[in-house]
Amino acid sequence: MSEQAYDVVIVGAGPSGLTAGIYTTRRALKTLIISKDIGGQLSLTDDIENYPGFKSIGGLELAQKFQEQAAGTGSEFLFEAVTEIIKDKDGGFVVKTFTDKSIKTKTVILAFGLTPRPLDVPGEKELTGKGITYCATCDGPLYKGKDVVVIGGGNSAMDAGEFLSKITNQVYMLVRGDKLKGEKVLAQQIHDAENIEVLFGANTKEIKGKDKVEALVYTDIDGNEKELEVSGVFIEIGYIASTKWLKPLGLEMDERNQIKITVNNETNIPGIFAAGDITEITYKQAVISAGEGSKAALQAYKYIQGDKPLIPDWTPKKK
Amino acid sequence: MSEQAYDVVIVGAGPSGLTAGIYTTRRALKTLIISKDIGGQLSLTDDIENYPGFKSIGGLELAQKFQEQAAGTGSEFLFEAVTEIIKDKDGGFVVKTFTDKSIKTKTVILAFGLTPRPLDVPGEKELTGKGITYCATCDGPLYKGKDVVVIGGGNSAMDAGEFLSKITNQVYMLVRGDKLKGEKVLAQQIHDAENIEVLFGANTKEIKGKDKVEALVYTDIDGNEKELEVSGVFIEIGYIASTKWLKPLGLEMDERNQIKITVNNETNIPGIFAAGDITEITYKQAVISAGEGSKAALQAYKYIQGDKPLIPDWTPKKK
Repeated sequence: MSEQAYDVVIVGAGPSGLTAGIYTTRRALKTLIISKDIGGQLSLTDDIENYPGFKSIGGLELAQKFQEQAAGTGSEFLFEAVTEIIKDKDGGFVVKTFTDKSIKTKTVILAFGLTPRPLDVPGEKELTGKGITYCATCDGPLYKGKDVVVIGGGNSAMDAGEFLSKITNQVYMLVRGDKLKGEKVLAQQIHDAENIEVLFGANTKEIKGKDKVEALVYTDIDGNEKELEVSGVFIEIGYIASTKWLKPLGLEMDERNQIKITVNNETNIPGIFAAGDITEITYKQAVISAGEGSKAALQAYKYIQGDKPLIPDWTPKKK
Repeated sequence: MSEQAYDVVIVGAGPSGLTAGIYTTRRALKTLIISKDIGGQLSLTDDIENYPGFKSIGGLELAQKFQEQAAGTGSEFLFEAVTEIIKDKDGGFVVKTFTDKSIKTKTVILAFGLTPRPLDVPGEKELTGKGITYCATCDGPLYKGKDVVVIGGGNSAMDAGEFLSKITNQVYMLVRGDKLKGEKVLAQQIHDAENIEVLFGANTKEIKGKDKVEALVYTDIDGNEKELEVSGVFIEIGYIASTKWLKPLGLEMDERNQIKITVNNETNIPGIFAAGDITEITYKQAVISAGEGSKAALQAYKYIQGDKPLIPDWTPKKK
């Protein structure tokens, strides 16, 4: 694939990207979805109970359903990283990939989600993958019977804490503020779990270990430095938008580097649309991202279609 | 139920209302969903192939899944019409119903969708329910082996035409413009169906019949008046927003009487939120409405919650 023309290139294959693919292909737009993985954060979520239509479903299973549906309607897939998007002379775009592919397209839908926020303390970089992780669902099972720390007090931290409490010996939740923020159901589960200890007002100072995590140093609510002997540190303090690579294109971002959009998912560049967690919308949920992906796809269709008839060569039948 | 206090009253039980109910109850908000029916337009749709998670599912079946999920998480239901919403002294609202119930609530989520647009021609009012219908899925089976007319050229008209072609003897599609507007897949199906005749540039003038529909008079693309002998007329020319009853409340609407919202589904009245087809968003799709309902619920939660801790009586455990 050196030069191939698509109507739509979708960057990212989470709920928004895959839903966009379902919608563009159903409108007969030639569509390529480029992503490093399938499902994005959805795949990393243990159980989803708030996606309408499924009382309870594994995140990975739901993501696979999305993908099968997008593939079934004709979306093509390419599994690698996008490195650059360049405006083409003809009003379209050229999408460049990590392995130097150049893909021509009329429109682009940016739907590549967010990246876990690092804690930025000594030891973090050195021990990532050696006891420090940003995904409880992925790596939790490695810490069976051990003592672990979860850092954070929001929904993803609570999710991680609740999940890990079933596998590990003891979970410490280090919360910087004085309360948990998120679903009350989750907070109650954390509260009720016998092997979860929540430490409010706790600030992580350092993660220690030679070849693997051995301990975590933090200051408690009174400012006293303390140490926890643990094997695993799960960092769940939210996400950042990795959109620097799009700056040369001139895309408008908000103060958190999230892509600014209209209610119909247009960016400031005609022909480029954005959907899901990478945009400025406040709430990050699978069903919201799916809805946003659908809107972006329909708007991209409108952009390409203009006022052309649906079947140009269809002469109305005479009576 | 004379005076009962809810955190959230949701008006409407389509995809947006039911999804809102799933989200508010999961955040432990006492929630009542008031609606005349379940599923809204979703229930009236034959097959849904673009709701992510289901390759193909009946609209009614999907709506039932939504409802079971909303009920399962604790949403209460009241099946009747809302007639008035009044601002209460305490900053909340009183929702009045058709049978004179008065329901107190802290917040309201308006999610009652749209109403089919009438054609506004002689004979329409008199023959509605006597051969004239606005719902092919509901009433199509009554016209087995007969000749029918579908009026309209958008997705819902094409859906109706395609569905009716399988049941009836002959379908005439009367399209005012010179093209079909909507999904190309649908347009192709219409094009390929042997017993569908599409008449472009056709304007309906009158629907004739004594006790039931007997014929339809229209002008063709050249302005000549013609008559079709048919038993059924399916009017599928879009929808209107029935929001007049909300005007005394001071809600801001757009020029189509759809409710104006922020990207997080706030209306101009604090404590009142809106989601789905009744709002100014351009695209009307189940997955979009579901996403919008989720956003409205989370924003209502934020409004009620303010900065209160999640479990106020939870004293942090000491080490």
